[in-house]
Amino acid sequence: MSTTLPADWTTLPAPTDAPGWIARAAEVSAVLAVDAAARDKAGATPYAEVRLLKESGLVTLLGPVAHGGGGQDWPTAYRVVREIAKADGSIGQLLGYHYLWNWAARLVGTRAQWEHVEAEAARNRWFFGGAVNPRDDDLVVREEGEDADTLVFTGRKSFSTGSKVSDVTVLEGVLEGTDKHIFAIVPSDSEGLAFHDDWDNIGQRLTESGSVTIDGVRVPWASAAGYTDKTFAPRVYNTLNVPVIQIVFINFYLGIAAGALETAATYTRTKTRPWLHGGHERAVDEPYVIDVYGDLTAKLWQAEAFADRVAEEAQRLHDDPDAITEDARGKHEVRVAAAKAVATEAALEITSRIFEVTGARSTASAEGLDRFWRNVRTHTLHDPIAYKRREVGRHVLTGELPEPTWYS
Amino acid sequence: MSTTLPADWTTLPAPTDAPGWIARAAEVSAVLAVDAAARDKAGATPYAEVRLLKESGLVTLLGPVAHGGGGQDWPTAYRVVREIAKADGSIGQLLGYHYLWNWAARLVGTRAQWEHVEAEAARNRWFFGGAVNPRDDDLVVREEGEDADTLVFTGRKSFSTGSKVSDVTVLEGVLEGTDKHIFAIVPSDSEGLAFHDDWDNIGQRLTESGSVTIDGVRVPWASAAGYTDKTFAPRVYNTLNVPVIQIVFINFYLGIAAGALETAATYTRTKTRPWLHGGHERAVDEPYVIDVYGDLTAKLWQAEAFADRVAEEAQRLHDDPDAITEDARGKHEVRVAAAKAVATEAALEITSRIFEVTGARSTASAEGLDRFWRNVRTHTLHDPIAYKRREVGRHVLTGELPEPTWYS
Amino acid sequence: MSTTLPADWTTLPAPTDAPGWIARAAEVSAVLAVDAAARDKAGATPYAEVRLLKESGLVTLLGPVAHGGGGQDWPTAYRVVREIAKADGSIGQLLGYHYLWNWAARLVGTRAQWEHVEAEAARNRWFFGGAVNPRDDDLVVREEGEDADTLVFTGRKSFSTGSKVSDVTVLEGVLEGTDKHIFAIVPSDSEGLAFHDDWDNIGQRLTESGSVTIDGVRVPWASAAGYTDKTFAPRVYNTLNVPVIQIVFINFYLGIAAGALETAATYTRTKTRPWLHGGHERAVDEPYVIDVYGDLTAKLWQAEAFADRVAEEAQRLHDDPDAITEDARGKHEVRVAAAKAVATEAALEITSRIFEVTGARSTASAEGLDRFWRNVRTHTLHDPIAYKRREVGRHVLTGELPEPTWYS
Amino acid sequence: MSTTLPADWTTLPAPTDAPGWIARAAEVSAVLAVDAAARDKAGATPYAEVRLLKESGLVTLLGPVAHGGGGQDWPTAYRVVREIAKADGSIGQLLGYHYLWNWAARLVGTRAQWEHVEAEAARNRWFFGGAVNPRDDDLVVREEGEDADTLVFTGRKSFSTGSKVSDVTVLEGVLEGTDKHIFAIVPSDSEGLAFHDDWDNIGQRLTESGSVTIDGVRVPWASAAGYTDKTFAPRVYNTLNVPVIQIVFINFYLGIAAGALETAATYTRTKTRPWLHGGHERAVDEPYVIDVYGDLTAKLWQAEAFADRVAEEAQRLHDDPDAITEDARGKHEVRVAAAKAVATEAALEITSRIFEVTGARSTASAEGLDRFWRNVRTHTLHDPIAYKRREVGRHVLTGELPEPTWYS
Repeated sequence: MSTTLPADWTTLPAPTDAPGWIARAAEVSAVLAVDAAARDKAGATPYAEVRLLKESGLVTLLGPVAHGGGGQDWPTAYRVVREIAKADGSIGQLLGYHYLWNWAARLVGTRAQWEHVEAEAARNRWFFGGAVNPRDDDLVVREEGEDADTLVFTGRKSFSTGSKVSDVTVLEGVLEGTDKHIFAIVPSDSEGLAFHDDWDNIGQRLTESGSVTIDGVRVPWASAAGYTDKTFAPRVYNTLNVPVIQIVFINFYLGIAAGALETAATYTRTKTRPWLHGGHERAVDEPYVIDVYGDLTAKLWQAEAFADRVAEEAQRLHDDPDAITEDARGKHEVRVAAAKAVATEAALEITSRIFEVTGARSTASAEGLDRFWRNVRTHTLHDPIAYKRREVGRHVLTGELPEPTWYS
Repeated sequence: MSTTLPADWTTLPAPTDAPGWIARAAEVSAVLAVDAAARDKAGATPYAEVRLLKESGLVTLLGPVAHGGGGQDWPTAYRVVREIAKADGSIGQLLGYHYLWNWAARLVGTRAQWEHVEAEAARNRWFFGGAVNPRDDDLVVREEGEDADTLVFTGRKSFSTGSKVSDVTVLEGVLEGTDKHIFAIVPSDSEGLAFHDDWDNIGQRLTESGSVTIDGVRVPWASAAGYTDKTFAPRVYNTLNVPVIQIVFINFYLGIAAGALETAATYTRTKTRPWLHGGHERAVDEPYVIDVYGDLTAKLWQAEAFADRVAEEAQRLHDDPDAITEDARGKHEVRVAAAKAVATEAALEITSRIFEVTGARSTASAEGLDRFWRNVRTHTLHDPIAYKRREVGRHVLTGELPEPTWYS
Repeated sequence: MSTTLPADWTTLPAPTDAPGWIARAAEVSAVLAVDAAARDKAGATPYAEVRLLKESGLVTLLGPVAHGGGGQDWPTAYRVVREIAKADGSIGQLLGYHYLWNWAARLVGTRAQWEHVEAEAARNRWFFGGAVNPRDDDLVVREEGEDADTLVFTGRKSFSTGSKVSDVTVLEGVLEGTDKHIFAIVPSDSEGLAFHDDWDNIGQRLTESGSVTIDGVRVPWASAAGYTDKTFAPRVYNTLNVPVIQIVFINFYLGIAAGALETAATYTRTKTRPWLHGGHERAVDEPYVIDVYGDLTAKLWQAEAFADRVAEEAQRLHDDPDAITEDARGKHEVRVAAAKAVATEAALEITSRIFEVTGARSTASAEGLDRFWRNVRTHTLHDPIAYKRREVGRHVLTGELPEPTWYS
Repeated sequence: MSTTLPADWTTLPAPTDAPGWIARAAEVSAVLAVDAAARDKAGATPYAEVRLLKESGLVTLLGPVAHGGGGQDWPTAYRVVREIAKADGSIGQLLGYHYLWNWAARLVGTRAQWEHVEAEAARNRWFFGGAVNPRDDDLVVREEGEDADTLVFTGRKSFSTGSKVSDVTVLEGVLEGTDKHIFAIVPSDSEGLAFHDDWDNIGQRLTESGSVTIDGVRVPWASAAGYTDKTFAPRVYNTLNVPVIQIVFINFYLGIAAGALETAATYTRTKTRPWLHGGHERAVDEPYVIDVYGDLTAKLWQAEAFADRVAEEAQRLHDDPDAITEDARGKHEVRVAAAKAVATEAALEITSRIFEVTGARSTASAEGLDRFWRNVRTHTLHDPIAYKRREVGRHVLTGELPEPTWYS
């Protein structure tokens, strides 16, 4: 990273409204963009980049103003994720996941718990990671201690996004002998937590999504999110974790796509040669070049509009969490599923087709223009979009609403 | 048309907010849907349907409250157009064009002119038509009378949407010996105006878009929109006619597409047989049927979100018309062009692919399911979407803004 | 129909090779093209057109040379169907179905039976229709007469393509009290056969695909195709009826698409105006127009190449019908299914997108340019292409071959 | 590479017909597939792989039987390229380019020249490279020596596919002071030829397509291809170099796509988990998985059929090179352009969409599944497919034939 911005971002005054925060995100994004291609190749752990997210204030965007947070809403958070992902899809993903894990306290926890967590998180600028891959079921929680007031987590998760660069990690396991899922927040440097550098995939290479082993990590029963006297009494709001994170996905896909398109346009303007038999002096005057940029831009804007719309719909639910009905939750999930399906298609098309208008030499490894497609291609497989279309199609045909799971 | 709603809509209280107006439009749409397929076949002039638009109050939606209008904004008007087009694309188009012609007074006219026109229009529930096809240039305006204070329009327009069913018609011609375009509103039953029943196209069959001959229609110079002492002093707002009407297009395309999808879904639920070798007892359980509905719905919702977004952006310009800069106008036009391009694609895909999930017997002429595609196919050729993409592509590549014409 | 060709085609010498027959088909196609749009509107029974198919010799293309037939193979027959469908999709379909029904004797019958049928058909220039819709099961066959040597067909079929304009009709029913399917050829003017003029669909309007009632139509048991002493001993070749007819479908879809593209190109060359803000003097110089024609042509040619390839593969099976194994049949069917799936997509895209390059005025009803899409849209629903893709996908993934049914 | 096939391929008897050669190619492909992903990562110069092409006899496939060549035709050569590209796109490209360079003698040279070159090439199993990038124009040829009977090449080419692993290299330059292009074949280890290891692109990483400097490489004037007494008298056949190599491109694109699909299918069968909320026990039973494989396979087969068809059309030209007219050449080029356009689209779609049916874990770098897309994406930019569509569109609209250039 290099920048003409102040090295010490912490001296900048905090933005006070949504446009201010989005502008701040754009400044951070500009810094991240400088060496994004090189960073993708190097694949080093993004300590410096996460520090930048903290110092710029972005990590506390959603936090309570009273404790130093930005006090913004989800639509703004999503826009910030998108802005960051323009420069670096991995960092955008890390920030988006962070927002969810931080917010998870409010989705799942008791009022006392989430107020405490959000205050601490804002005050200390915690960066959150999570070890909560629902397709693994081998993290066991056991009771221990006098009065069985301690929980001990032991086991393994295949994927643990961001934990290695985080301050705190959300653990999720099943209480032994029950089918109770328990969430708890622990310091990421807890003894017993070991993050393995085994995330080596074709995209989103800096997300530190490797496996983690959890060997006897202890938390007080009282910290188990949402439990009161060992009894879990969730509200419907609890099931909003899926739409919340899926809109995060949508936004970093679209951020990556926007970054691809901007990077390509700069390339076309400055490096692409007009075709030698086309009769144009500049690549930007080639009709096919103009057409492709027009087409891809229209598709991007369309997907962004839908993403913003579902974010607004989501916010109306967040505004009154106790009023959310299963029906409202279900209809919202269907809208989010639809937005995910089409955002995925737009992002894949854009990141693959940019080459058509940058030309043969733009495939040089040094340009790194393939990272956009690799990033989108990798994460859009998180859960099959065929099942997103299924949620939507079933609802339209029969009125059926998706049953809340980890993916719907 | 048949309905259980009161035959006399005028007794219903007027809605007072946007959701109320959209609900009203939905009620009207339900009435129009009953015999839409038959009406398309018959191709009769839609006098009754226009009367319904008047009696339901929809024609005065944008009019001043003081004179009996609804006082609503453009985003609501666009949603109303979409709602009506769900049932009948032609009637949706007629209503949308009406909104523009009515509003044209404000875009082009002096304050005194548009205040007068809007008051009259609201009080009398005028339905507007227009004879303003810019690709014809053979409508000549001559001065006449003492002090040359009268204008006489003579000539011909190839297309004149809605005039035959209208109360007033907007004429547009060129002042003889100059290149001044002059707009004026005249009663549709003016002597000298002759509407020819020669609109016989594959779609939008009830829009009465036939040719018109204008033989010596007189208006006072003082009624020439925007002229003061025979001098025209337009503001940038004047050039907003293109984005205003193009968003009308977008919305009736999407309304038609939504109508197609709803009609198809009803058909699939009630008539489509499961495939005899598919192993399902109901068509709605066929994975491919669910998938197609999911896909098309997601694409529709996406296009609607973009349409709504550009409508909101438009409204911000309407809110302060004198503040509109050429730059703001140009950027808005680019956004509208993008929305038009993708809405066109979505509407064409949806109206063609619905058959895939309604099945072979749904091609019976009596069902009339092809009217949706015919409607969209016909009007989306109004101006080439390739040129919409060109506006967008040029802007993204070089910052160029579209020069205001009748199409950009 | 009007033409400068001899009114009496029967005086023309018969072609002697495949190119000659395809050229003959092109001549017939040129005659049919003259008033194809008007014919589609009128929807009259195509007696004259079928007579042209007979007089030009096309109906006996596949027949034995010894009896006046053309002695050609299936790849040529498919090309002829395509050629005819360029001008008129309905007539192309009628001819293709005729080829199958004529050939059905060979697929199902004993050697004595098919040799007899083919000789008679060639000598008399029979035009074949069929009442064989497999999704209806209410045509019952009863034994009658001394020694139960007569079969009596009674019942109804929803669709009976071509029968009204045919000389002979293939009946299919189930022998009462058994699950034996029996095919027999009867004169189309048999007492008891009543063709109802109830085919009124949005496309393929002249195919006379209405319902038929069969009231006591008698045939000798000895004429039941493939039965010897009332016992049916089919060979694998028998199951080739599905791929044979599905390749017919593919070819008239592609013929319709080719006709659409040629008709559009003529329109663009002669009528389409260049865009007034595009800077070109002729529509054919517009980059977007050139691009769309290039794109659609490439897609058409590609689909044609695949169609021709599977036709060649089919011919290798026809060349040695007794050697066909279930494995060979299954693999061929999978290839045909694949070709059908992509030909359907190409034909739909071409027939819908031509308007993009003919322009707004080309939607005039008089032009009839929508008939191509309506024709393709209607017949491509014959059986769901999703199930075609399923055949292919299953085979690729697990090696599974489609079980022979009426659709696979 | 590892294999159970004999290490010494030279002991295998040479195939004698096209199916035999294609089978041989498949055997070689199986060997190359074993470590293709690892080889792509390592990026080492493919000496061993080229040796395998030689020892297996594939390099002399087109060579004269009298001198040890295979005596096969171009359709077979293209199929062999496709077969090799299934395993390794780079090696497929190298082999295809080799076929062209070897054949270039016949396209450009005098009979004496090409008979000599082909005999030598077959006898010595020469592997050909080329330094003939037409967008560079800085390779100058000067006359030298007594009687000016020697040509000296000096300059640079940006791209020189395969030269580093070749035995002989085709040089192309412009005779100083003229606009005469001169081709000559020189040993790749000629003094003055320096291949630079600067090909580092995202795909086709083993094609050794780096730059080359040519510093005073000498050849006798008598070796200048096609020149007799320093006069060049080309025939139309000379201009077939473009379609010949473009069909090579098409075939290695489709080979890569086929390899992607086969590799993916194996992955889906053996590693992909069914979706946990889908209700299926095996991924291969998921309807969406089956559908995608059906769709992609149909598209691949279709593109292959078109590729094979244009190869057959090409062969008819090769069969009588002196009879080729400009018209025939032009129409063939248009067909090839069309095939290239659609093959490009098919290959891009297949190589990007396979992930949809292999799932999230298949993005592990170790699987290397992204190499297929990277390979196709890289080479399909060789020349813009928009210009391919332009060739086709212009021809369809106006009959215009592409002027022979290095790209059309």
